[in-house]
Amino acid sequence: MSERLYFGDFRTGQVFVLGTHQISAEEIIAFAKEFDPQPQHIDPVAAKSSILGGLAASGWHLCALSMRMMVDGLFANAASMGSPGIEEVQWRKPVYAGDVLKLQAEVLGTRESSRPDRGYIRMRFSLSRLGKSAQPQLVMMFVSSVIMGRKPEAA
Amino acid sequence: MSERLYFGDFRTGQVFVLGTHQISAEEIIAFAKEFDPQPQHIDPVAAKSSILGGLAASGWHLCALSMRMMVDGLFANAASMGSPGIEEVQWRKPVYAGDVLKLQAEVLGTRESSRPDRGYIRMRFSLSRLGKSAQPQLVMMFVSSVIMGRKPEAA
Repeated sequence: MSERLYFGDFRTGQVFVLGTHQISAEEIIAFAKEFDPQPQHIDPVAAKSSILGGLAASGWHLCALSMRMMVDGLFANAASMGSPGIEEVQWRKPVYAGDVLKLQAEVLGTRESSRPDRGYIRMRFSLSRLGKSAQPQLVMMFVSSVIMGRKPEAA
Repeated sequence: MSERLYFGDFRTGQVFVLGTHQISAEEIIAFAKEFDPQPQHIDPVAAKSSILGGLAASGWHLCALSMRMMVDGLFANAASMGSPGIEEVQWRKPVYAGDVLKLQAEVLGTRESSRPDRGYIRMRFSLSRLGKSAQPQLVMMFVSSVIMGRKPEAA
């Protein structure tokens, strides 16, 4: 287990690789039946004639999967205090059953808070598809600021 | 069942009320165990001493629930062709177990596409908490453009 990360440990330009995940048709359908029950996400036959050309994950499912990779790969071991929101989400390419996805985060900047116990880390999260070509293909990108605690001073 | 909505049916300033949902502790924990397993979302005891002060829904859970209300309340009966992304998400207030949420959408603008069969509807989605005060309290807001098909011309 690596050391816990605090605000002062983040630097502009740092890159974190936050894990990979292979998405299944069952996962795509289960998420979409609960949260996004449109034909292109729940019905493999209807999906073929949809704008996406096949059963594809809900964009919000990709956000949720990315969050899981962020928690497992970074926040579980950092002084994260949540986020006030997202600046932008770009859904760039459809994601199909069987695709292997990789999440990477890049620190775009850090900013002090008026509260002395925390600061803001602005990050770009990039979700890419692996294995169908030599280069990973970007399927989703979002930018968000995370509130990160400072390391408590020794007493 | 009302008539199906196409690009030409949307006007700047239109407001759609897209339904209400009461969120339970079980739902909050089930979503978070899969997608956002941080203590404030999965452990009612640990959540009490967290920055949120009690078991609170993952922000991504609120996005997913809003999508469900959007599908049931609007897109299931409109020529929606998906979305290229989200301009902004603001998580304004924590949402706790038992809260009753209402989603409303406002059309901010419409824009032609270079493709003759569709256009863009820019919308602001506002998720509010009901019932704890006279005025609904805004808990989340996001802005997104939706690709909407035009009504096919009669042959």
